Amino acid sequence: MNATEPKIEELKQRLAEINDVRSAAAVLNWDQMTYMPPGGAEARGRQVATLEQIAHEKFTHPSIGRMLTELRSLERTFPADSDEAALIRIARRDYDRAVKVPPAFIAKFSAHQSATYEAWAKARPANDFAAVRPYLEKTLEYSRELANYFPGYDHIADPLIDFADFGMKAATVRALFAELRKELVPLVQAITAQPTADDTCLRQKFPEAQQLAFGCAVVKQLGYDFQRGRQDKTHHPFCTTFSLGDVRITTRVKEDNLGDALFSTIHEAGHAMYEQGIRRELEGTPLARGTSSGVHESQSRLWENLVGRGRGFWRYFYPKLQAAFPAQLGSVPLDMFYRAINKVERSLIRTDADEVTYNLHVMIRFDFELQLLEGKLAVRDLPEAWRERYKADLGIASPHDRDGVLQDVHWFGGQIGGSFQGYTLGNILSAQFYDAALRASPGIPDQIANGEFTTLHSWLQENIYQHGAKFTANEIVKRATGQPLTIEPYIRYLRTKYGELYKLG
Amino acid sequence: MNATEPKIEELKQRLAEINDVRSAAAVLNWDQMTYMPPGGAEARGRQVATLEQIAHEKFTHPSIGRMLTELRSLERTFPADSDEAALIRIARRDYDRAVKVPPAFIAKFSAHQSATYEAWAKARPANDFAAVRPYLEKTLEYSRELANYFPGYDHIADPLIDFADFGMKAATVRALFAELRKELVPLVQAITAQPTADDTCLRQKFPEAQQLAFGCAVVKQLGYDFQRGRQDKTHHPFCTTFSLGDVRITTRVKEDNLGDALFSTIHEAGHAMYEQGIRRELEGTPLARGTSSGVHESQSRLWENLVGRGRGFWRYFYPKLQAAFPAQLGSVPLDMFYRAINKVERSLIRTDADEVTYNLHVMIRFDFELQLLEGKLAVRDLPEAWRERYKADLGIASPHDRDGVLQDVHWFGGQIGGSFQGYTLGNILSAQFYDAALRASPGIPDQIANGEFTTLHSWLQENIYQHGAKFTANEIVKRATGQPLTIEPYIRYLRTKYGELYKLG
Repeated sequence: MNATEPKIEELKQRLAEINDVRSAAAVLNWDQMTYMPPGGAEARGRQVATLEQIAHEKFTHPSIGRMLTELRSLERTFPADSDEAALIRIARRDYDRAVKVPPAFIAKFSAHQSATYEAWAKARPANDFAAVRPYLEKTLEYSRELANYFPGYDHIADPLIDFADFGMKAATVRALFAELRKELVPLVQAITAQPTADDTCLRQKFPEAQQLAFGCAVVKQLGYDFQRGRQDKTHHPFCTTFSLGDVRITTRVKEDNLGDALFSTIHEAGHAMYEQGIRRELEGTPLARGTSSGVHESQSRLWENLVGRGRGFWRYFYPKLQAAFPAQLGSVPLDMFYRAINKVERSLIRTDADEVTYNLHVMIRFDFELQLLEGKLAVRDLPEAWRERYKADLGIASPHDRDGVLQDVHWFGGQIGGSFQGYTLGNILSAQFYDAALRASPGIPDQIANGEFTTLHSWLQENIYQHGAKFTANEIVKRATGQPLTIEPYIRYLRTKYGELYKLG
Repeated sequence: MNATEPKIEELKQRLAEINDVRSAAAVLNWDQMTYMPPGGAEARGRQVATLEQIAHEKFTHPSIGRMLTELRSLERTFPADSDEAALIRIARRDYDRAVKVPPAFIAKFSAHQSATYEAWAKARPANDFAAVRPYLEKTLEYSRELANYFPGYDHIADPLIDFADFGMKAATVRALFAELRKELVPLVQAITAQPTADDTCLRQKFPEAQQLAFGCAVVKQLGYDFQRGRQDKTHHPFCTTFSLGDVRITTRVKEDNLGDALFSTIHEAGHAMYEQGIRRELEGTPLARGTSSGVHESQSRLWENLVGRGRGFWRYFYPKLQAAFPAQLGSVPLDMFYRAINKVERSLIRTDADEVTYNLHVMIRFDFELQLLEGKLAVRDLPEAWRERYKADLGIASPHDRDGVLQDVHWFGGQIGGSFQGYTLGNILSAQFYDAALRASPGIPDQIANGEFTTLHSWLQENIYQHGAKFTANEIVKRATGQPLTIEPYIRYLRTKYGELYKLG
């Protein structure tokens, strides 16, 4: 950004300071998940809360509002797609959102979220929905209150969806999901009518150190830059950004399941390459982040699924994987391995689901969020509703809430509303972006089969990564693919891949 | 602290918030030294600076000054040795100091210190004093300016010494060091007239993993709590506190030198046990830290030297060390090992020096600090003065500045003045405290020889650790030992130990 305008420079400086404080909170969170000794937990919670409060106070300070108002006329002198106009526009959008929610409410809700998380962390292994029910009822109440700080919505979930996926509404997502569902349900039926794939080859003992080394070697070759990142172990994998020069990923390793760490590493590296690829000029500004939950997820799923579960990818990597685990995989043919990592089944747990059924899990949660917010479903009826819906959509249901309504952290550490649609939007977009990349460079599949990822990485860099949050999700999709969001490439991808795998008519 | 007084509660809350921000900066520094990828460096420097500036602004805010003024009358209603009175007293002392230095000066000096550090990090391996000379001249200028924000001193070094060792002055330290020197010089002469000890047993190859495991096992047994701490590797060992429940140490390992990691681990654990032992009621206040540089160092040196280099300690631990390194030490007798870890020699590098000559290294630096500040020594003459003084005091001198004036980071990352006296004050106090502990519990040496450290640890906990910065160094020494600071126990300790080791008359 060549913003030599003193007023823009001043805004950038103020925002950079706020960003420094938020980055510090991110480092403290990362440390808590990776290396912090147990005794540090109590003070750490307070330290993070203090930093977040300082960042919030500094950002919602009236002087920022005044600066943004004063910049309105200057903004119009820059082209809408300039860094300068985008900076002012996105900063104003963030500011307008932030000032609408009273600090006292944030403090109250935030404390409630921590308490709910603690309760859930105990209740889930104990299979005890009753223990968290009052917390969740309060969460629903707070989620409604949060939405109501943004009056004028069509659906009460709209403001909450908008936080994560700007420009999306309950109605849009609902229509999109209905369309997708119409395609997915018969596909799942057709697949599950076939004999299930054999994935025992993934269920042997794979020592942790070799799993980690292999995963790191893979994502390095995909383009994740370890000079500007690193991988550590945590209970749940995540990606976190401290600066554009320090974007870290984490993973967990199950020694009896080869796919778990490997695909989570590729998934998180996909998120991380997005943030590592943001133009350095945007550092410290609100543009230096992914543009939406859906677009962010599209980048992780593209690498994890369209690339990382593809046949071409393993044509290159499988001999290397066999060399890393000769005793376990030496006599397993590539085709058997490929089928194993793409096994489709009706299952209970979202995070373990294959790419075909995964979206059905997401839609269940999305629909429940809407019904809860609308008041059509009560929290006390949720466990039973969950079982019924799983039976209807996936043909199975667990008698245990720990594998049902208690399985996901989202509602128990955050809000109800806006938490899930990004996963399926990401799946849809991953195929739409990949399709566009292939139209631009039809040689990409052959390159992948030779372990070359530069062309694909560069296309993503050029069309998505570099822009950060400068363009909205809708703008990015339009610019990168020439079309608005469409499920067509995703459906085509699933039909082709799984049609071949399961020999469907 | 049972401070139910609303005004004290309010002060504590404000100070806790500032402490949270400082702790966050400490986490960011730790991360930078341990795990941060190279690409993170640039933004990290700015993030830490932002946090430090926020903490400084919040602490020097006039409202803190008003609160402290208003608390004067309340302070008098509490006994001087109550937590409440101490909190107000120490907070006021910190505040009065902080507001005397203009923020613009801090920013300027801080930027200069970073630049000097960068220049030194290149100049030291290149043996290039000329490259850092202009930086150091500026540092001297800034150090004088800093001191001059505290007018009314007897010696210009006094304010700088006072920051680190409250209550100490150049004249006091000078007199104390002269007294100690009179004892040390003949002792060093007598020892070095004897045949040097053979320490080749320490100079074999000792694999890193076993060194780290042994060091951790040792400090765990001494009382370092790994539930509230951890050890990581860094270029230079240090101890850092994020909260009383999270006090971490770092070490470095040289595979060809067994003593290096082991004694640095014990040293840093000594610092850490001090901070882990501070009463939880003081958490978040300015009392939750070591009381002075000298007292802090006394805790690391007590464990490192008086305990960790003692014969009784190794009577217990040596068989375990031999079991960890059977090929290297299996046939080395305890006595040979004990002599090796206590080898005295005239050497060039302070951090590698034995406990007898160590203080001579410190005194050289202390004297130079005074002369530089007084204007009696010019920076350009420092390398030559260094060589002359080393020849005079230690009988050797390096032609290379990298092993001379460039060896210590202190002047190149901080200020000139107040940086070194704490090391020797710590040595003196380590013996005075240990002597008092033994008077209270004469069984301690026998317990140590049986691997029991609880009595000693509890004495330190009771008399030193728990109080944090509630009492000044002078008060702590008086309370814990019944006497003011005295070199007598330290001299007696050295004479006894080294008289026996080197068979001196």
